[in-house]
Amino acid sequence: MMDDKLNIPLIENNKPGAMRTEDEKKALMQRLKRVEGQVRGIQRMIEEDRYCVDILVQLSAINAALKKVGYHLLEDHTRGCVSHAVANGEGDEAINELMKVIQQFSK
Amino acid sequence: MMDDKLNIPLIENNKPGAMRTEDEKKALMQRLKRVEGQVRGIQRMIEEDRYCVDILVQLSAINAALKKVGYHLLEDHTRGCVSHAVANGEGDEAINELMKVIQQFSK
Amino acid sequence: MMDDKLNIPLIENNKPGAMRTEDEKKALMQRLKRVEGQVRGIQRMIEEDRYCVDILVQLSAINAALKKVGYHLLEDHTRGCVSHAVANGEGDEAINELMKVIQQFSK
Amino acid sequence: MMDDKLNIPLIENNKPGAMRTEDEKKALMQRLKRVEGQVRGIQRMIEEDRYCVDILVQLSAINAALKKVGYHLLEDHTRGCVSHAVANGEGDEAINELMKVIQQFSK
Repeated sequence: MMDDKLNIPLIENNKPGAMRTEDEKKALMQRLKRVEGQVRGIQRMIEEDRYCVDILVQLSAINAALKKVGYHLLEDHTRGCVSHAVANGEGDEAINELMKVIQQFSK
Repeated sequence: MMDDKLNIPLIENNKPGAMRTEDEKKALMQRLKRVEGQVRGIQRMIEEDRYCVDILVQLSAINAALKKVGYHLLEDHTRGCVSHAVANGEGDEAINELMKVIQQFSK
Repeated sequence: MMDDKLNIPLIENNKPGAMRTEDEKKALMQRLKRVEGQVRGIQRMIEEDRYCVDILVQLSAINAALKKVGYHLLEDHTRGCVSHAVANGEGDEAINELMKVIQQFSK
Repeated sequence: MMDDKLNIPLIENNKPGAMRTEDEKKALMQRLKRVEGQVRGIQRMIEEDRYCVDILVQLSAINAALKKVGYHLLEDHTRGCVSHAVANGEGDEAINELMKVIQQFSK
């Protein structure tokens, strides 16, 4: 499982590209399409002068959905890039970056 | 300032409609259009197999933007509906609802 | 209910003192004593070199307990000081302060 | 650096003990002693009927301090136990547990 990660393609800035499977990508895209729809739904609610509390409840739902997407990506990243770096004895930098993104994400 | 709120129009479920000014609505719509663009940006990043950490940073930015929209709505709501209810001696229920939505929103 | 709040005692910086009942104070003190005990429990876990994940779970429990204390205080404050100010036509500043503290608290 | 972790002592439930250095432990204990003092400070504020908003600001400070302790432990744990497990080809379970605790902690 680790072996097929030895040749992670580098993209811009020498950052490794992701190694998400087609299934994972499809699942993430589906969630994000739904979030996009929810954001448009809130625009409609604003236009229709809907009750603030109802809009706030919808906003909470979007935040929860985006958090789920975030946790998936975080897990992918830890299982993929971070584990790969650790297994190659280069974990320090990968873990620094991971901790920074966790802090930013859980703000 | 309170007077023009005495005739809050009721919408479905007898919930009062919002009393946002055109300027407030325009500002909220602009923020939400930008969020919609950011969500589509993340879909593109997934399709292009971009680096997880970069996507997570973008997700944090969307969460921050949605929180700002939420605080605006919360403030509108408190200044409008809640204040109106309190001034009319009917604050209890409005404050119950406010507290519930704050808890949900700050999860 | 609002009447007994007309003479809110001012303390340092002209800030109004709280109007918590003895029961509310007792309940808050109990929660905070428990939190104090939990914090000391974590110190013990550190001294005993306990497993990080177990300590993190305890930390989450403390955060949840403190959030509950915070929501109680926020509700007290909104029902007491903020409602009082609104009823007296002086709601603007009280709501500004409320919004600021909600933002800080839900970080 | 990884070598001295090959013999992680197991404690109750076969959970590995922590591998914090004395300096790390001292720093964590100092932070937690300060948090304990802050919690007692809030108890005093309740007893003295202090202004809700001032108490809420103090609560936010405690939450921020506890989050810092949490991030330190999370980082220790990832650099220590998780990396060790990954390097030994046993990363899956360690990462599952890590993700769960991150979710709980960032609630």
